[in-house]
Amino acid sequence: MIDHVASMRQAAEVLPADVFAYFAAGAGAERTLEGQEQAWDDLLLRPRVLRDVSATSSATQVLGHPVAAPVLVAPTAAHRLAHPDAEVAVARATKAAGSLLVLSMRASSRVEEVATAAGPFWQQLYVLQDRGVTDEIARRAAAAGARALVVTVDTPRVARKRVGFPASFPGTGIIEALDHRDIADPRLMQAEDVSPHDLERLAGTSGLPLVAKGVLTAEAARACVAAGASAVIVSTHGGRQLDGVVPAPFALPEVAEAVGGDVEVYVDGGVRTGSHVLKALALGARAVLVGRPVIWALASEGSEGVRRLLTEMTSDVEEALALAGCTSCADVGPDLVRWQNARYSRPGV
Amino acid sequence: MIDHVASMRQAAEVLPADVFAYFAAGAGAERTLEGQEQAWDDLLLRPRVLRDVSATSSATQVLGHPVAAPVLVAPTAAHRLAHPDAEVAVARATKAAGSLLVLSMRASSRVEEVATAAGPFWQQLYVLQDRGVTDEIARRAAAAGARALVVTVDTPRVARKRVGFPASFPGTGIIEALDHRDIADPRLMQAEDVSPHDLERLAGTSGLPLVAKGVLTAEAARACVAAGASAVIVSTHGGRQLDGVVPAPFALPEVAEAVGGDVEVYVDGGVRTGSHVLKALALGARAVLVGRPVIWALASEGSEGVRRLLTEMTSDVEEALALAGCTSCADVGPDLVRWQNARYSRPGV
Amino acid sequence: MIDHVASMRQAAEVLPADVFAYFAAGAGAERTLEGQEQAWDDLLLRPRVLRDVSATSSATQVLGHPVAAPVLVAPTAAHRLAHPDAEVAVARATKAAGSLLVLSMRASSRVEEVATAAGPFWQQLYVLQDRGVTDEIARRAAAAGARALVVTVDTPRVARKRVGFPASFPGTGIIEALDHRDIADPRLMQAEDVSPHDLERLAGTSGLPLVAKGVLTAEAARACVAAGASAVIVSTHGGRQLDGVVPAPFALPEVAEAVGGDVEVYVDGGVRTGSHVLKALALGARAVLVGRPVIWALASEGSEGVRRLLTEMTSDVEEALALAGCTSCADVGPDLVRWQNARYSRPGV
Amino acid sequence: MIDHVASMRQAAEVLPADVFAYFAAGAGAERTLEGQEQAWDDLLLRPRVLRDVSATSSATQVLGHPVAAPVLVAPTAAHRLAHPDAEVAVARATKAAGSLLVLSMRASSRVEEVATAAGPFWQQLYVLQDRGVTDEIARRAAAAGARALVVTVDTPRVARKRVGFPASFPGTGIIEALDHRDIADPRLMQAEDVSPHDLERLAGTSGLPLVAKGVLTAEAARACVAAGASAVIVSTHGGRQLDGVVPAPFALPEVAEAVGGDVEVYVDGGVRTGSHVLKALALGARAVLVGRPVIWALASEGSEGVRRLLTEMTSDVEEALALAGCTSCADVGPDLVRWQNARYSRPGV
Ligand SMILES: Cc1cc2nc3c(=O)[nH]c(=O)nc-3n(C[C@H](O)[C@H](O)[C@H](O)COP(=O)(O)O)c2cc1C
Ligand SMILES: Cc1cc2nc3c(=O)[nH]c(=O)nc-3n(C[C@H](O)[C@H](O)[C@H](O)COP(=O)(O)O)c2cc1C
Ligand SMILES: Cc1cc2nc3c(=O)[nH]c(=O)nc-3n(C[C@H](O)[C@H](O)[C@H](O)COP(=O)(O)O)c2cc1C
Ligand SMILES: Cc1cc2nc3c(=O)[nH]c(=O)nc-3n(C[C@H](O)[C@H](O)[C@H](O)COP(=O)(O)O)c2cc1C
Repeated sequence: MIDHVASMRQAAEVLPADVFAYFAAGAGAERTLEGQEQAWDDLLLRPRVLRDVSATSSATQVLGHPVAAPVLVAPTAAHRLAHPDAEVAVARATKAAGSLLVLSMRASSRVEEVATAAGPFWQQLYVLQDRGVTDEIARRAAAAGARALVVTVDTPRVARKRVGFPASFPGTGIIEALDHRDIADPRLMQAEDVSPHDLERLAGTSGLPLVAKGVLTAEAARACVAAGASAVIVSTHGGRQLDGVVPAPFALPEVAEAVGGDVEVYVDGGVRTGSHVLKALALGARAVLVGRPVIWALASEGSEGVRRLLTEMTSDVEEALALAGCTSCADVGPDLVRWQNARYSRPGV
Repeated sequence: MIDHVASMRQAAEVLPADVFAYFAAGAGAERTLEGQEQAWDDLLLRPRVLRDVSATSSATQVLGHPVAAPVLVAPTAAHRLAHPDAEVAVARATKAAGSLLVLSMRASSRVEEVATAAGPFWQQLYVLQDRGVTDEIARRAAAAGARALVVTVDTPRVARKRVGFPASFPGTGIIEALDHRDIADPRLMQAEDVSPHDLERLAGTSGLPLVAKGVLTAEAARACVAAGASAVIVSTHGGRQLDGVVPAPFALPEVAEAVGGDVEVYVDGGVRTGSHVLKALALGARAVLVGRPVIWALASEGSEGVRRLLTEMTSDVEEALALAGCTSCADVGPDLVRWQNARYSRPGV
Repeated sequence: MIDHVASMRQAAEVLPADVFAYFAAGAGAERTLEGQEQAWDDLLLRPRVLRDVSATSSATQVLGHPVAAPVLVAPTAAHRLAHPDAEVAVARATKAAGSLLVLSMRASSRVEEVATAAGPFWQQLYVLQDRGVTDEIARRAAAAGARALVVTVDTPRVARKRVGFPASFPGTGIIEALDHRDIADPRLMQAEDVSPHDLERLAGTSGLPLVAKGVLTAEAARACVAAGASAVIVSTHGGRQLDGVVPAPFALPEVAEAVGGDVEVYVDGGVRTGSHVLKALALGARAVLVGRPVIWALASEGSEGVRRLLTEMTSDVEEALALAGCTSCADVGPDLVRWQNARYSRPGV
Repeated sequence: MIDHVASMRQAAEVLPADVFAYFAAGAGAERTLEGQEQAWDDLLLRPRVLRDVSATSSATQVLGHPVAAPVLVAPTAAHRLAHPDAEVAVARATKAAGSLLVLSMRASSRVEEVATAAGPFWQQLYVLQDRGVTDEIARRAAAAGARALVVTVDTPRVARKRVGFPASFPGTGIIEALDHRDIADPRLMQAEDVSPHDLERLAGTSGLPLVAKGVLTAEAARACVAAGASAVIVSTHGGRQLDGVVPAPFALPEVAEAVGGDVEVYVDGGVRTGSHVLKALALGARAVLVGRPVIWALASEGSEGVRRLLTEMTSDVEEALALAGCTSCADVGPDLVRWQNARYSRPGV
């Protein structure tokens, strides 16, 4: 079992204070960050009994790619701040654990380098002010072997946080690798006028399926799917963008209902245990992503720590499935979960 | 009156740390464990007045066996870790207090030995991978005088916990007594493919009525009853199996509604006071079971401590009945309880 | 303004520990005690504006007796433990403040003595096992000038508490004054078979109007009114009888709806501020009673402390009325209050 | 970003204890004060995605006056206690930040002096017992350039607080400037018989539009509008008047529904972040007012501190708009917000 609190504490010890604060921070008054694990805990599971779970498996597929468990590695920036082996270490661990890496556009390693260590991976990107560079990145990622583009749609700009970027913030790999090396160049910042058209163009440019990351409402999900997304990620960006938004598990049902029949739905933000993952599946998600725990593991124990984290989470999910009387992810249905008439309720209730 | 917190603290003092931790632990992130007493407290009682309660009695029957109060001793493993007199001490105390013992299959004393000290008792068992041994245990228990088999259905495997088994974990009595002495033998572990058929077979083999322990939904309860159970126990296994499930009092109404007309319904998990018992009865339970408090009493004060605990709980229940204007357990009805529009609500509300 | 916390702390300093604990205690696990002030706080006020409140008065009547504010002194036992001047000090203060004293049957002064110091007062009594004594007490109180009998119906027996009676618990005045001086005589304990008939008989015997104290449901209130009560008090007995019952403000609406058209309804338990009183009125109460704050004031500052407490509460109520745009207690209506969809909700919601 | 807690702490250090306590205090048991920020936090935002927010602006108008953001300076008394430059410093800062000052009638500077430093400002006033003086103040303010009269309707008298006025409480400017210099003169205290007629008369006398400050219900809002108000402010007076009232965000929807079609609706009390402002707009407010944060900034850093506070809040609002996919205040709709089924719920739910 994973003791996430201990793991975070250990990271706080090994990392410089400003680096730890950068990874840990949320936006604004951090209300969304504070509440995100509790929101998962507030849901209640309804286990089945007298099922044969001797062959229970947590394996599933995301966009057709097999994974050992419905737990992917969320795109997070600048792993070099956490460990010198950076994204390569994470890629190797992710592959070893049978998970799937979503590589951040703000990674501190070049995509080609990461690709050699990685199994199947997806490339996250922001639509930048300079659309030419954006498209070039998409193509570069595709050429390096990325299997999908994860376009983050909740960041027309980076939200201000209590703490700033650490002084040591590294140049970001994929961008460095282009002609454009100056990441302070404003045209390499997130575009504020991202439109459905950008999604359509990126799909065409890269030839890759698109995943829209950062939707919290049915309307947003529908807009992304209409623009060509093959999947959406329900996400508060780990509490790092608009503060005070609906927690992901509370937003998930309306998104799943709106687009879950047509595309795959994933979710992230505060997902920490096998029970959380089970709840996500029961609410209509196909998989979850995990952000900060990967960083803490990387900081404390490098690639091996990340591999262990992901392997443990797989075991956790597999155990939760079995204890709930389910034999596979597909076996999980809405009967598995129940809302407290509590802090969060099903939409419309 | 029983001060459960003081009692637990005292146990923490007399027991080796790993033993205390083993008894106290919950599974996973311990959310279910943490919330289980609060869930009972969240319900509200509606007392009656101007009733003649001079002859109020807490006595009742479970599967036809008279008990001094609707408070049974839950099956918990390895009492020898708590006290050298182990299950025999508990059996003697339970008899003296007019309660009923559910003996764990993972007990650290032989059932024959316990039986001599006990009044009427029930034998808990897990369906093991080795069905032959399972059936043998059922027959042995029946021969020793057990009046019912309590088959635990929430444990296709033992959930992982923050703490492991204590080094000193004893061999388990009933199994030892068979030819199979090696409790590490995987075929003596819980079966992952328990089916309704197992319940049916065990009923036939032993000739005893079956109680299915560990249901939290109407569906699960119905499945057990269909497989021949004469009673069901609504239980989260004291927060030791799937973490994040519905607290027992929240699950109880749907189970009582589904099968309460046909079989007896019991409940356990965090039941600590006479008020809790009254709430359980009002929600449709015929009796409750108490787990950890018995262990703490045993650890601190041996058999006499357990007897006192159970006697006090009887007094507590009897007092709660009288103060609520009820003369007997049968007199308790659904008008006695009211839901806060709070953390837990009646299903469908 | 009254700082209730400071006042309680001061009492804790001047009183022997066992005496303080006796006054402060609740029954059982003290859940009802713990939650009773919060339950009042959870309600929300909806103030009116642009009203002429220059002549706002908190004065009202209870059973026809004028009081300066709808705040009465609850019957609490054994004031001699708190202060040598005991109930006489409280009676004098209550009169001076224009409030009304409900004298406990377990008072530590004789009713005749208290009567000389008191303004209009009511006599609380329990129906005792010895009905003859009970009736004699009722007659004695009537003869001494009591204007009503408050029959407490929530105490078929005294609930057990974490702490016991203090060694110094005094003989109780009204009983001492009879031939029966031994308060340990079981026939002077509360009767467990109180019936509507007792209420009817006491009304006849004493010639006084009856107030039934300790109802928490519509059914209970109706039963008391059917037995002849002229008023009912919604009360948890300050959390000293059945633990885990509905908090008074949560029970009040159903009682007011059931019998408020026919008799006066009062409420007590955790009422501490002018806002609380306003909420009580808005929910259908005609007045509130205050228990422990009187004891703390008495312990620290004697009669003068109690007078000041009651005077301050009158000011508090008058201020709350004015700030809510009300000119009198009668002016308060249900529009003044609103339920959070929170811990407590209106019945049926 | 503004760290409100740090800012308050800093003020607590630079101010005399009684002065700090005066500014910080709430009325009664301070329940309303304690809960007011949480009530905003309890609401949840539903951000839009894929919108062009490159030209997002927080600018708006209140009663036709352009402001940089929908964040006004609430009227608070006696700024001289916080800083020698008093209201003039605040006026200058407010103008520099493009916000709008609501000058308190209990200001410690003369309105004419404040007017020279201020941009467009509004004059708050209480209807005083002496209507002649009240009208004179209204005319004086109009003459000095005030653009609206904010008549506070929640204060038929000043609620008692745990702490009193600081010894150093200054004479209040606008009143000093009249013939009536003795602010202890009871006829200069708030009138208890304020009526719709007063509002009508003040509108006529001053020729200014009226804003009614301190409504918490639909009825109150309608009464003010019927009396001629051009706008209403939903306010608990920062928790300084009737304690235990509905928190402002909980009251806002019913007010907006009742009168929002006819007049502008503002809100204050615990508004601290861009997310809070966004929630207010989504619930139907045109702008918010901010009270204590201005005082803390003034105390610690004078005019420059206030300017920075307001500028930061503008940035916060603009960021929140952009991150929510809105291009302007007018673009914010009810789809942006969602109620937890939590502590506060939409009326009728
Ligand atoms: C330090 C950090 C950097 C992040 N960088 C990115 C990023 O570059 N792109 C992106 O789409 N999301 C980014 N995220 C958000 C994550 O992908 C994910 O949504 C979030 O971390 C999930 O929440 P969790 O950390 O609670 O698991 C970042 C999150 C963190 C904590
Ligand atoms: C240390 C321990 C061992 C347990 N062993 C068993 C067991 O062998 N079989 C079983 O069915 N339940 C077992 N349980 C679960 C209990 O029967 C019961 O469901 C639970 O303890 C009730 O919750 P409580 O401890 O809060 O009263 C065990 C519980 C504990 C705490
Ligand atoms: C020390 C103490 C003694 C009491 N004795 C009596 C009593 O003799 N008769 C009675 O009807 N209620 C008695 N009560 C209950 C009070 O009348 C009242 O219901 C309760 O105290 C109200 O709650 P409060 O203390 O929070 O204001 C007693 C309460 C306390 C705290
Ligand atoms: C110290 C202080 C003095 C105030 N004085 C006045 C006043 O003179 N007139 C008025 O209408 N409101 C007054 N208010 C209330 C504010 O206008 C406003 O409603 C409240 O402060 C908003 O809450 P906030 O402080 O949490 O932002 C005062 C508030 C404080 C804290």
